[in-house]
Amino acid sequence: MKLIKGNFIYSIDKDNIEIKENQYLLVKNGKAEEFYSEVPEKLKDVEVEDYKENIIIPGLVDLHIHAPQYAFRGMGMDMQLLDWLNTYAFREEGKYSDLEYAKKQYSKFVEDVKNSATTRLSIFATLHKDATIMLMDLLEEAGINAYVGKVNMDRNSPEFLTEGMMESKEATIEWLEQTKDRYKNIKPILTPRFIPSCTDDLMQEIEYINQTYNIPVQSHLSENQSEIEWVAQLHPDTNNYAEAYDKYNLFGKENKTIMAHCVHCPDEELDLIKRNNVIVAHCPQSNTNLTSGIAPIKKMLAMGIDVGLGSDIAGGSSLSIFRAMSDAVQVSKLREAMTGEADQILTLSEVFFLATKGGGNFFGNVGSFEQGYEFDAVVLNDESFGDNSNFTFKERLERIIYLSDDRNIVAKYVAGNKVI
Amino acid sequence: MKLIKGNFIYSIDKDNIEIKENQYLLVKNGKAEEFYSEVPEKLKDVEVEDYKENIIIPGLVDLHIHAPQYAFRGMGMDMQLLDWLNTYAFREEGKYSDLEYAKKQYSKFVEDVKNSATTRLSIFATLHKDATIMLMDLLEEAGINAYVGKVNMDRNSPEFLTEGMMESKEATIEWLEQTKDRYKNIKPILTPRFIPSCTDDLMQEIEYINQTYNIPVQSHLSENQSEIEWVAQLHPDTNNYAEAYDKYNLFGKENKTIMAHCVHCPDEELDLIKRNNVIVAHCPQSNTNLTSGIAPIKKMLAMGIDVGLGSDIAGGSSLSIFRAMSDAVQVSKLREAMTGEADQILTLSEVFFLATKGGGNFFGNVGSFEQGYEFDAVVLNDESFGDNSNFTFKERLERIIYLSDDRNIVAKYVAGNKVI
Repeated sequence: MKLIKGNFIYSIDKDNIEIKENQYLLVKNGKAEEFYSEVPEKLKDVEVEDYKENIIIPGLVDLHIHAPQYAFRGMGMDMQLLDWLNTYAFREEGKYSDLEYAKKQYSKFVEDVKNSATTRLSIFATLHKDATIMLMDLLEEAGINAYVGKVNMDRNSPEFLTEGMMESKEATIEWLEQTKDRYKNIKPILTPRFIPSCTDDLMQEIEYINQTYNIPVQSHLSENQSEIEWVAQLHPDTNNYAEAYDKYNLFGKENKTIMAHCVHCPDEELDLIKRNNVIVAHCPQSNTNLTSGIAPIKKMLAMGIDVGLGSDIAGGSSLSIFRAMSDAVQVSKLREAMTGEADQILTLSEVFFLATKGGGNFFGNVGSFEQGYEFDAVVLNDESFGDNSNFTFKERLERIIYLSDDRNIVAKYVAGNKVI
Repeated sequence: MKLIKGNFIYSIDKDNIEIKENQYLLVKNGKAEEFYSEVPEKLKDVEVEDYKENIIIPGLVDLHIHAPQYAFRGMGMDMQLLDWLNTYAFREEGKYSDLEYAKKQYSKFVEDVKNSATTRLSIFATLHKDATIMLMDLLEEAGINAYVGKVNMDRNSPEFLTEGMMESKEATIEWLEQTKDRYKNIKPILTPRFIPSCTDDLMQEIEYINQTYNIPVQSHLSENQSEIEWVAQLHPDTNNYAEAYDKYNLFGKENKTIMAHCVHCPDEELDLIKRNNVIVAHCPQSNTNLTSGIAPIKKMLAMGIDVGLGSDIAGGSSLSIFRAMSDAVQVSKLREAMTGEADQILTLSEVFFLATKGGGNFFGNVGSFEQGYEFDAVVLNDESFGDNSNFTFKERLERIIYLSDDRNIVAKYVAGNKVI
């Protein structure tokens, strides 16, 4: 048990932000228990961490990120998806067959994640089993909580970055067996790269593995028009891209599933996302950098679709989910300005929700300070922005979203454990 | 005289980046003189500043920024232009009648500018003469080079932030007289806030002052549809917004003139911009935050219009012109994605040019390391991004644009003087 003191800001739902000014939060067994204005008699021996004037928010959640692409983030920003994959992403990922290279690059990635405001992630590694396990080890050691996926890909990929179908299946099973019970905070997630990278046979094998091991799924959906046309050619029996996952039972329902992007989903695809309880990872910076477009997030929220945010390193160049929040607001404004459609603009409250409780929902009771939620928290000092004395907490939160970097982070907790 | 050693990257024109790897640049009387691969015999006694593996680029130019809005940057990002002006901008600017308040806020602004990669700015102060002079003093002291404008506004503004017409005229003349010969690096610029803020009589007085004192002009143009309609109502005799400046001879030709935004210029307005040699300050983040839209920069460049970049604090929340560069690329991609028009996407080379030589042109021979250019330079260490050993200089430059912050700045020069 401990008491954390400070100014707490968190989401109740997408339209409501709760502010607990200068209060004590009792954290018990790594979970938020109760707020107090003063320390009650029964808790007077409990240790207090006093963060004074600082602001404490739930840890941020990154629902979509490619760890092996971190090494070249911010490069090749003049290409669209399929060209960019071939020129930059695949070439870099190929290097992760070399464990020494993987260790060097993944260590830098994990160090920077640790120093960021992100506490939970769902990560694409590469197809390499051993490098994927190394990444999982490094994340566990850093105290981060994450789903990590060994990628499956057995077609339409360069020779140096492709598996045989059986090889992919076997490596995936070995990976699951080797990592079973190995971690406290790291879990595996099935990761067929995207439909064009996986043969029908491989998709069947992944379906079988999914039924056997009962683990969640992540992939990409309707990011780019050329990609969507390609999927339609590969699966002429489907009505939309989502059905190409759904026909192998890898699209929600019993399987918790993250689908990244969803920029160009037709209405029937959005309906399927909703019906199957798939969560959308909105990656505004990546969708901008790769000229994919602007996802209709406001429409998804109105439909009751679950949405979180993703950095999508290295389609996105910034690891920061604060940046993803401001990007999400900004591109939603440009969607409204450029299409003339009304009600496209995301509010501060909505993006704060997406980055915390919205994405956190994929991990259980995560992303809020309501009772029973795992205590993921970031303590932020905003003095570097200038005099804040006349600002409300909501205004200070907005400035943190738009202006902060890792220097503003005073402390960070993951499920009650102090990580920095 | 001194010799600066390092890896120099600079623009020749919008399509060509020059790289001088591991060379010495002779700087003489504050100007770039000549590059050498080795120190020639005749210069062997000249002091060498060796920046080793670091990258040296021209100082960045911010063509449009409101200094008094820095204090609330990153707030109120859920409003459009005219509402935002009334709720946030005008209220804050009103406080600058208090010199103590002005000193506190302007000191923070100038400190952050000093620590940024920006070496030249064109700044809006407020209508307050004394606070404007204080800002000029602080900038001079910090070694920054800037145009600063006392704002003129005598209508459509809140009572606490408006002048009488004669009051505005007299304060402007006093300001010009008091600051004459006062600075080495700071110059005045006439700053009618925008057409809706200035009566016809005041515009005539500003025209008269301009003819008397022969100083440049800055203002806003065609940022937002409501604003454009308003200007059309105020000046029913004009064919477009630009003509409302041009009829008072405050739109280029003999007067060097910056017009910020230019998001929604009709073709005839773009023609007038080109004909009169007005330079456009493109402010992508502000145009996004205020849901103004995406300016057609690629079209302007094709027409031969001069363009630079602006942070437009606090419509923009970031002071960084690196951020303005990546924002400019990003919104140009969304312009292409959302309109379907071809050839909208700005290249790395183009935005690097806009941020250096493009905007620098307004200040004379500024923004390049070609012979005779004033030596404005930023020395950048990019080691924090990870291992760069396999990247080209152009790739390293791209990463600096997307990833750097003030921690990456090792040194900065303005017209040959080391500022940090």
